[in-house]
Amino acid sequence: MLYLVFYDITSDGLREKVADFLKRKGLSRVQFSVFLGNLNSSRVRDVESGLRMYYRERKEGERFNVLIVPVTEVQFKQRVVIGEVREESANVLW
Amino acid sequence: MLYLVFYDITSDGLREKVADFLKRKGLSRVQFSVFLGNLNSSRVRDVESGLRMYYRERKEGERFNVLIVPVTEVQFKQRVVIGEVREESANVLW
Repeated sequence: MLYLVFYDITSDGLREKVADFLKRKGLSRVQFSVFLGNLNSSRVRDVESGLRMYYRERKEGERFNVLIVPVTEVQFKQRVVIGEVREESANVLW
Repeated sequence: MLYLVFYDITSDGLREKVADFLKRKGLSRVQFSVFLGNLNSSRVRDVESGLRMYYRERKEGERFNVLIVPVTEVQFKQRVVIGEVREESANVLW
């Protein structure tokens, strides 16, 4: 199943850590704060627990919110893009 | 069909206009730069053409990217949230 992972993280450092983590886990960036990856249930749990670890690193008053939403390949192919496509996602085959 | 609308817009003014536009179109904020709405095909085209109008307002060098992805209600219910839930989305019934 494909998963969209998108975040709203105010700390620059933590945001970079989360982006690097998602790349390491094999997800592709489709927008600045949005990643997409094809994950089985064990890999999605692994991603989730990693993100919960970063959540515990946030400081008081900092915004940290991540959402993981499953989508099908058919739905993702139906996406509409307005504006420039990111270089990384230009290589995405879906 | 539910639609997730993600944006990455560098101009504060244009970003606010887009957020207000999506609210007027009946979408709910689920994250700072992500909205969700239940739209039929005519309403989704209406949202798309409005967003293309804002895209033409961007200035040279400004980043402007919007992604619209269809999801089913069942999938959105399966979402995983890490961190605080936004007040507005706390009222979302899905």
